[in-house]
Amino acid sequence: MSKPPARSGFGLDPRDDLNDLRMSEKALPLLEKVKSFIAEVVEPMSEEFERLGEGRADRWSYAPGQLEALEGAKQEARKRGLWNFFLPDADTGEGLSNLDYAYIAVELGKNALASESMNCSAPDTGNMEVLERVGTEAQKEKWLKPLLEGEIRSAFAMTEPHLPSSDAKNVSMSAKLENGEWVINGEKYYISGAGDPRCKIMITMVKTSPDAPSHLQQSQILVPMDTPGVEVLGPMNVFGKDDAPHGHMHIKFDNVRVPEENILMGEGKGFEISQLRLGPGRIHHCMRAIGQAEKALDLMVKRGMSREAFGKPIVQLGKNMEVVSRARIDIEAMRLMVLKAAKAMDVLGNREARVWISMAKAMVPERVCEIIDEAIQMHGATGVSQWTPLADMYTGQRTLRLADGPDEVHHMVVGRAEVRSYGSNS
Amino acid sequence: MSKPPARSGFGLDPRDDLNDLRMSEKALPLLEKVKSFIAEVVEPMSEEFERLGEGRADRWSYAPGQLEALEGAKQEARKRGLWNFFLPDADTGEGLSNLDYAYIAVELGKNALASESMNCSAPDTGNMEVLERVGTEAQKEKWLKPLLEGEIRSAFAMTEPHLPSSDAKNVSMSAKLENGEWVINGEKYYISGAGDPRCKIMITMVKTSPDAPSHLQQSQILVPMDTPGVEVLGPMNVFGKDDAPHGHMHIKFDNVRVPEENILMGEGKGFEISQLRLGPGRIHHCMRAIGQAEKALDLMVKRGMSREAFGKPIVQLGKNMEVVSRARIDIEAMRLMVLKAAKAMDVLGNREARVWISMAKAMVPERVCEIIDEAIQMHGATGVSQWTPLADMYTGQRTLRLADGPDEVHHMVVGRAEVRSYGSNS
Amino acid sequence: MSKPPARSGFGLDPRDDLNDLRMSEKALPLLEKVKSFIAEVVEPMSEEFERLGEGRADRWSYAPGQLEALEGAKQEARKRGLWNFFLPDADTGEGLSNLDYAYIAVELGKNALASESMNCSAPDTGNMEVLERVGTEAQKEKWLKPLLEGEIRSAFAMTEPHLPSSDAKNVSMSAKLENGEWVINGEKYYISGAGDPRCKIMITMVKTSPDAPSHLQQSQILVPMDTPGVEVLGPMNVFGKDDAPHGHMHIKFDNVRVPEENILMGEGKGFEISQLRLGPGRIHHCMRAIGQAEKALDLMVKRGMSREAFGKPIVQLGKNMEVVSRARIDIEAMRLMVLKAAKAMDVLGNREARVWISMAKAMVPERVCEIIDEAIQMHGATGVSQWTPLADMYTGQRTLRLADGPDEVHHMVVGRAEVRSYGSNS
Amino acid sequence: MSKPPARSGFGLDPRDDLNDLRMSEKALPLLEKVKSFIAEVVEPMSEEFERLGEGRADRWSYAPGQLEALEGAKQEARKRGLWNFFLPDADTGEGLSNLDYAYIAVELGKNALASESMNCSAPDTGNMEVLERVGTEAQKEKWLKPLLEGEIRSAFAMTEPHLPSSDAKNVSMSAKLENGEWVINGEKYYISGAGDPRCKIMITMVKTSPDAPSHLQQSQILVPMDTPGVEVLGPMNVFGKDDAPHGHMHIKFDNVRVPEENILMGEGKGFEISQLRLGPGRIHHCMRAIGQAEKALDLMVKRGMSREAFGKPIVQLGKNMEVVSRARIDIEAMRLMVLKAAKAMDVLGNREARVWISMAKAMVPERVCEIIDEAIQMHGATGVSQWTPLADMYTGQRTLRLADGPDEVHHMVVGRAEVRSYGSNS
Repeated sequence: MSKPPARSGFGLDPRDDLNDLRMSEKALPLLEKVKSFIAEVVEPMSEEFERLGEGRADRWSYAPGQLEALEGAKQEARKRGLWNFFLPDADTGEGLSNLDYAYIAVELGKNALASESMNCSAPDTGNMEVLERVGTEAQKEKWLKPLLEGEIRSAFAMTEPHLPSSDAKNVSMSAKLENGEWVINGEKYYISGAGDPRCKIMITMVKTSPDAPSHLQQSQILVPMDTPGVEVLGPMNVFGKDDAPHGHMHIKFDNVRVPEENILMGEGKGFEISQLRLGPGRIHHCMRAIGQAEKALDLMVKRGMSREAFGKPIVQLGKNMEVVSRARIDIEAMRLMVLKAAKAMDVLGNREARVWISMAKAMVPERVCEIIDEAIQMHGATGVSQWTPLADMYTGQRTLRLADGPDEVHHMVVGRAEVRSYGSNS
Repeated sequence: MSKPPARSGFGLDPRDDLNDLRMSEKALPLLEKVKSFIAEVVEPMSEEFERLGEGRADRWSYAPGQLEALEGAKQEARKRGLWNFFLPDADTGEGLSNLDYAYIAVELGKNALASESMNCSAPDTGNMEVLERVGTEAQKEKWLKPLLEGEIRSAFAMTEPHLPSSDAKNVSMSAKLENGEWVINGEKYYISGAGDPRCKIMITMVKTSPDAPSHLQQSQILVPMDTPGVEVLGPMNVFGKDDAPHGHMHIKFDNVRVPEENILMGEGKGFEISQLRLGPGRIHHCMRAIGQAEKALDLMVKRGMSREAFGKPIVQLGKNMEVVSRARIDIEAMRLMVLKAAKAMDVLGNREARVWISMAKAMVPERVCEIIDEAIQMHGATGVSQWTPLADMYTGQRTLRLADGPDEVHHMVVGRAEVRSYGSNS
Repeated sequence: MSKPPARSGFGLDPRDDLNDLRMSEKALPLLEKVKSFIAEVVEPMSEEFERLGEGRADRWSYAPGQLEALEGAKQEARKRGLWNFFLPDADTGEGLSNLDYAYIAVELGKNALASESMNCSAPDTGNMEVLERVGTEAQKEKWLKPLLEGEIRSAFAMTEPHLPSSDAKNVSMSAKLENGEWVINGEKYYISGAGDPRCKIMITMVKTSPDAPSHLQQSQILVPMDTPGVEVLGPMNVFGKDDAPHGHMHIKFDNVRVPEENILMGEGKGFEISQLRLGPGRIHHCMRAIGQAEKALDLMVKRGMSREAFGKPIVQLGKNMEVVSRARIDIEAMRLMVLKAAKAMDVLGNREARVWISMAKAMVPERVCEIIDEAIQMHGATGVSQWTPLADMYTGQRTLRLADGPDEVHHMVVGRAEVRSYGSNS
Repeated sequence: MSKPPARSGFGLDPRDDLNDLRMSEKALPLLEKVKSFIAEVVEPMSEEFERLGEGRADRWSYAPGQLEALEGAKQEARKRGLWNFFLPDADTGEGLSNLDYAYIAVELGKNALASESMNCSAPDTGNMEVLERVGTEAQKEKWLKPLLEGEIRSAFAMTEPHLPSSDAKNVSMSAKLENGEWVINGEKYYISGAGDPRCKIMITMVKTSPDAPSHLQQSQILVPMDTPGVEVLGPMNVFGKDDAPHGHMHIKFDNVRVPEENILMGEGKGFEISQLRLGPGRIHHCMRAIGQAEKALDLMVKRGMSREAFGKPIVQLGKNMEVVSRARIDIEAMRLMVLKAAKAMDVLGNREARVWISMAKAMVPERVCEIIDEAIQMHGATGVSQWTPLADMYTGQRTLRLADGPDEVHHMVVGRAEVRSYGSNS
């Protein structure tokens, strides 16, 4: 039971390319262009967008002018060549490596409309990637094309209200083939983006083959939002917020019928497809999370320097300097871990890199929550109020510890990989 | 520099009455009566109250019928002799010890309208206690009487938006005596209850004597809500919630003029008065917090037993049983510490007991937040949704770590007491 | 699956005697007498004892004069009526409650020879208690009597080198009945006290009934140290120390034969007997641990006040005051929890109190280790040196987290009790 | 007070060379040669060395044959070109970058005699580096030359028993110039290596200029071990161990007189010189610490897989898989942080890199202690015994949290750098 030769990509491996975490020469100009575009176009547009949306009658649709403003930014992005660059290696995209995209994701994380302005927003990115890799020509024509054009939006229906999300093979919504149609029954919730009136298509995770081995029971099926039987029960809240009109919707599927050819890849491929999409998504979440931690540390230090108590700036009191230090140290460590996971995806492929991805996903949101929480504490009551973004930042990051696999699942992946490297089957 | 003989109430002191944490014989029947009243009267009334309030036009006032329902419960409470029993030793009250009240506070914490139904709700309790102890006959007649009758409500304006709350002597709102009137200028925020249309009076903490020693610069002055110059700027949110119509208001005082006799106790007594009110309030907060932790643990275990993943109830997976164990252990330890602090107030007086109070306040809300957070994690995404009370419970307890002195201040009190017991002056 | 009525001794139960944590009137004079005896007799004797033992040729036996000094103190203890008072309810003992004994245990913890001077030292206390409760007249005559007289010492052989101690039913040393004799084969280690030349008898935990249900497979058998086949392989170290001549011995049992009547209570009673002895032992460990934490905090504060860096006493720097505060808070919380567990044993009996005992054992040594570690940090390099007792204190407490059930086992007991209170069988 | 442009080497800086953490092509063959040399030469020699030393009469000198064995290995190292390669950029050394050396340090950390066999052992490495950079020709001839030849050993006398080591400018041992001689009086302790009979020279940190600004009061002076007045009071222990014959000595300097020219660089340069030596030393400590954490994780997993309780391998019980996962995650994060700090020293220079060095030093030993502690817990009582190296590993790493600046000092460096990046002077 002695330890086998170092696992690929693990341990020291001094000359291993995994340790070269620099952005590529090629991607640098793109990063600069993205930064300029956000500053020059997205930010002024965002302000107008927000102003137009205030006090609108129906929180679940857009106010007059809002979408026009957004479309203007999208046109400009296309003109500048900043469109769909999330696609990793397609002729449709920029061919960015995961490492390069990770650096850019930090910029995208700074403005709520930046991603959408460049057609790089979740969950569309994952949906487009899946369609491009495994879609049929007809599926691509019907759904991928308008998504790539930014004409419609989409959703991904995976989590179910009555099953723990920690076990990804745990799916109860059923799809049965009857007369050339899939008949779907069940419930999904936290379907992000399904509240948007522009959302036209969902990729749904269903159980088609209850008697197959556990990782071959699931399939993914395309369900247009306007299919009869798709019943939006309402929004799910996140610490009291509904994020309208984007929303995290709770949807009932009541004898929803779609054509047989709406299945992706084929029966029993559902689990395989989700492995494909989840890696990059998790890394992008983590990079944005680090951006949030940087912002929290920035607010923490500024507050700590500008307020005085007992005759001193509060950052100088008690443990506060050590709180600042530990935040900085952990931010740098998390950044390196996320970059390494992105690099591992580039070098080893998503499958081989999955332990690195789980390491990042288990490490980052938990610690980022703590850093934001410490920033709240440095602000006193103002920290939980509408006067700082900290309360929203906290609830967002707290939710991330549950999304795309709760922390526990990622620790299980990492722990098992370690144990299995000794030849165990557990 | 050897340690002096044990401080009063500290260390082992085996026969010390501080170690008898039993409720008194006298208070037991009251506890039972409170429980029955809540079950028989408050709970049905609460449901009606909530139903009546839904979708009301103005979130900052009550819907027709709401206050009538509440008044009905209040009448019944008086009939049953369950009125104003918070008052520790007055002929107006029940003469409950702090320890007895602590046991009862747990019951009060279980229903949002229970305290008010028995005229025992914050901040009125603290305000009534202060008025009874230090108010003039005229002040008592004008404000204490209607408060004791439950005819009006009140607020306490202490925290300021531009000063850290960690330093209680840090007050910038000024009051200057001009022609027999106090002229008040400044801002206060997080004035809980000031949004209620029935709130008629505020006790305000002001700086009257900037040249006096730091603990003698403050005064407390009665300011009727309808005084010209009292400008409610809006509600402060707590993680996005405004708690209307109660509210945590942000108020500007713009040349607010009140008669000279509205001062409490006299110029420079502001800090002394706040010492008086804060002890019991903190202990009640802590007892309610423990009630929240019990509820979170209950939800955590029920969820953990009713959901399965990987073929097992999730409470059996990974570290979950240890999470449950640590929650139970710490709940019991916190309960004993809060009871001991209450007992210390009874035996030693609020001033001598202040280290025990700070120990409880520094210990409890921080750990309760963690327990609620662990309950959220056990629920997956449902834990942050509107389907469980956990998100609201979390934000409430998180805010408590900042209210009535942030954790840091209480640790400073405890740390200093320890160091000073060796004869240091630091 | 709703929660059943409060478990006995759990939750608030306001009038519950469990909440009266005062020492009894009766025991107070004993506490005072113990204190005086330690100060007047044990301390001077200890100094002589240590001086005599220095540089002795054989570390595993006593130097001339050492035992004579100790015997002198023992005679004096008997004269003062301070003998065998550990026995909870016997005519042989003082009939102290567990709560009373807990208070006294703190004093016993302050001097390494105090317990033995009053014939109250582990593991003899547990062995005597077991013999008194379940021994036959012949066993009592042969072993209990000289133990109660302080003429011999004893050991308890339970832990085995090749089995995890977390599972108490996991015993591999076998005893088979052949011709009226138990034939014992196997290995035990960490047998504390078995290095002492005065140790004459071991109670051994063996497997006699491999086919019985798991809690009925074990038996306890008396094995005189001088039985042929008892082979002391050597001492086990604790962080490099062997604690000679007391020692924690590693012993091989090679066809060791003892008469059939050396069994305690009967075949298959081994697990039941160990439940009996472990409760009080754990509480005494925890009280002594709290004494260690008090000492560590005392050293921490004194050091912090007497050293300066950057122009200030180091206790005033950075997080140090908060470290002091958290240590004090947790010491008080632990003390209350241990007293409550002792009280639960008195009121509910050892079996019903076992969740309280596990709560204390899981909580205390872990946190005490941290407090000692923080005291080390406050001392700089001196903290790990021979100039303070902190390094020894740390290694002792660290080992306690593994002895008498590792932390994990106690958390399992507490977690299970919580879950089972909902009617689960897990 | 907005944040200035990113500090050099901080934040994302995508193309920054700091993010290329690969070992250089040039150093790879050296790494392989070091590995072979350790396996082929050092390991067999170590076994003989240990065997020869057992039970030697005087623990503070070497047994016959020991030094001869060691010298044999040293001759072989020179033959293979593996000599003095620690020197970063000298014609005397290999010109290894700090990053390259960091990778090799992991190998050196695996065998206690490996470093010395290649003349790369502390504190000689630091002393040689200092002498090479700032020594006069005469100093080099007299002390550097025999050190580079491996003929003598040396020590560095910095820490004082009566002053906190957290403040590096805090030096009380005085040196006064009298008649062309420095007269030194005071005490130093924890002088590692000063117990070795081959140790001939100490670099001592003294206060020469009490009236200068605080960072110019110190000087470093060469003191031969055999100078009259150098009185070795005895060894300092580390958790009870004296590490003879290397030792961590406590030395009194009683009117020790050395020639004026024994000063390094000149009066008041003491603090400047120590900045020079400490960076690389800290990084090497951290790399070896990571090696220790890898070893602890390896032992933890092997033990967890090979022991069963409750019918399962114990690594599968409770939180153990998550403990394994968190250890792996943090080991990888720490490794990247240490490599980044080494790279920062290469790219930015030791002075600019000091925040990165402090980040690594504050992060690594604290977490490594925890990982070793978790490995102990997985072993039960065996974990603290002589049957695993874990107890020794723990005490070594615990001491590292106090050596070369306690954690608190490094957090202060990091916290201050963060605050100062906003333009504060605090």
